[in-house]
Amino acid sequence: MHKLVLMRHGESQWNLENRFTGWTDVDLTETGRAQAAQAGRLLKQEGYDFDLAFTSVLKRAIRTLWITLDELDRMYIPVEPSWRLNERHYGALQGLNKAETAARYGDEQVLIWRRAYAIAPNPLELDDPRHPRFDQRYAGLDPAVLPATECLKDTVERVVPYWDSAIAPAIRSGKRVLIAAHGNSLRALIRHLDNVSDEEIVNLNIPTGQPLVYELDDALRPIRHYYLGDPDEIAAAMAAVAAQGKAKS
Amino acid sequence: MHKLVLMRHGESQWNLENRFTGWTDVDLTETGRAQAAQAGRLLKQEGYDFDLAFTSVLKRAIRTLWITLDELDRMYIPVEPSWRLNERHYGALQGLNKAETAARYGDEQVLIWRRAYAIAPNPLELDDPRHPRFDQRYAGLDPAVLPATECLKDTVERVVPYWDSAIAPAIRSGKRVLIAAHGNSLRALIRHLDNVSDEEIVNLNIPTGQPLVYELDDALRPIRHYYLGDPDEIAAAMAAVAAQGKAKS
Repeated sequence: MHKLVLMRHGESQWNLENRFTGWTDVDLTETGRAQAAQAGRLLKQEGYDFDLAFTSVLKRAIRTLWITLDELDRMYIPVEPSWRLNERHYGALQGLNKAETAARYGDEQVLIWRRAYAIAPNPLELDDPRHPRFDQRYAGLDPAVLPATECLKDTVERVVPYWDSAIAPAIRSGKRVLIAAHGNSLRALIRHLDNVSDEEIVNLNIPTGQPLVYELDDALRPIRHYYLGDPDEIAAAMAAVAAQGKAKS
Repeated sequence: MHKLVLMRHGESQWNLENRFTGWTDVDLTETGRAQAAQAGRLLKQEGYDFDLAFTSVLKRAIRTLWITLDELDRMYIPVEPSWRLNERHYGALQGLNKAETAARYGDEQVLIWRRAYAIAPNPLELDDPRHPRFDQRYAGLDPAVLPATECLKDTVERVVPYWDSAIAPAIRSGKRVLIAAHGNSLRALIRHLDNVSDEEIVNLNIPTGQPLVYELDDALRPIRHYYLGDPDEIAAAMAAVAAQGKAKS
């Protein structure tokens, strides 16, 4: 039996400001850093240990990982960063306030953009300075793979090949793996692991900074999963994520 | 022409207490963290950028690297940790105060242990809890490669193969490389790069937290090298390192 731990980054500045973040490289707030430290202490207290970590190329996930590894006294384990674990690209919505966007376009349209499995927001223009082709962290990649917007389906289609080629082989080889990533890249992974339907996956809310444990059999099929930590806190954190897209929240 | 940047970690708790550290996993002091941040700002200000970083598996080097990458806004570059970049193993001296050791054994004996190229301090016993075979970060390695003590020659002999197999190929492929490591693993590397004699290398003092730039030709032969930063500060930092082994310092 393998144990895989997933962690959504702690609160970021734009989580706090309720803005669509996507691939914007926004940092953690002080609360986000404290959440990451708390997650690390919880993992340590419950006896978790890791040989290898995966993360995105966005600093809110990397810092969450660093703080967690520091608390675990495991700063020395190898860390593999990949753009494939980035948050879903939010296209032209990146930077907009979620409540303002909802007030302007209606809750329903925002819910479609946020949660329809196969409908993406308008893309960034090719000459928009926010386009990933201007960001040197993606300079080594084929420009054809760089998104200007994504629906969750697109995110799934770039996360799953990375699971297959990098993460799953490491777990199979016996390595204890920690993944620090984002609401939608983790949703994409969970959809794949648990074979969740397109309709259901959009309603799955992953709280920030709470370690989510997947127990996997030898074929890496999930046996069960659970959050570490206080169940009431986790339920409250999930409800807070679900409420973000509402105009009046 | 390639530019390689070497950094010795900032001040650690045992640098401050003037104790032999070696493979003991001592953390940075607040001063050490500030030095790392200053080094990062200096590199940024001078226009340096990196695609890949190498470090040891000891947290004083890793934290120095993390702080530097944070200042450079390059938290996302791949980092390769390796035991081969660890500080020289100081054997049974690990944990002892340098001045006390000098008062007990004499300045000359301590200078021999610290600076003779091929004379190692007494080794740790195999059942000493400080022996690296009890540390899980080395669990994947052949126990035969794990030192219980080292002279600088031993350190050279484990650093150079890593340079040849991992670092040099990355530089040759055009990657801009940063190495955050330790006084003696960097000395070992410099001995190899500059073909320094056994007699001279022991007198080379590398200040903590100061970026050292090596310009290399296509065959990775050094063209020139220089520290970034204020020359007076660097000279003072080098003199402080040289004075650490004296009984009355």
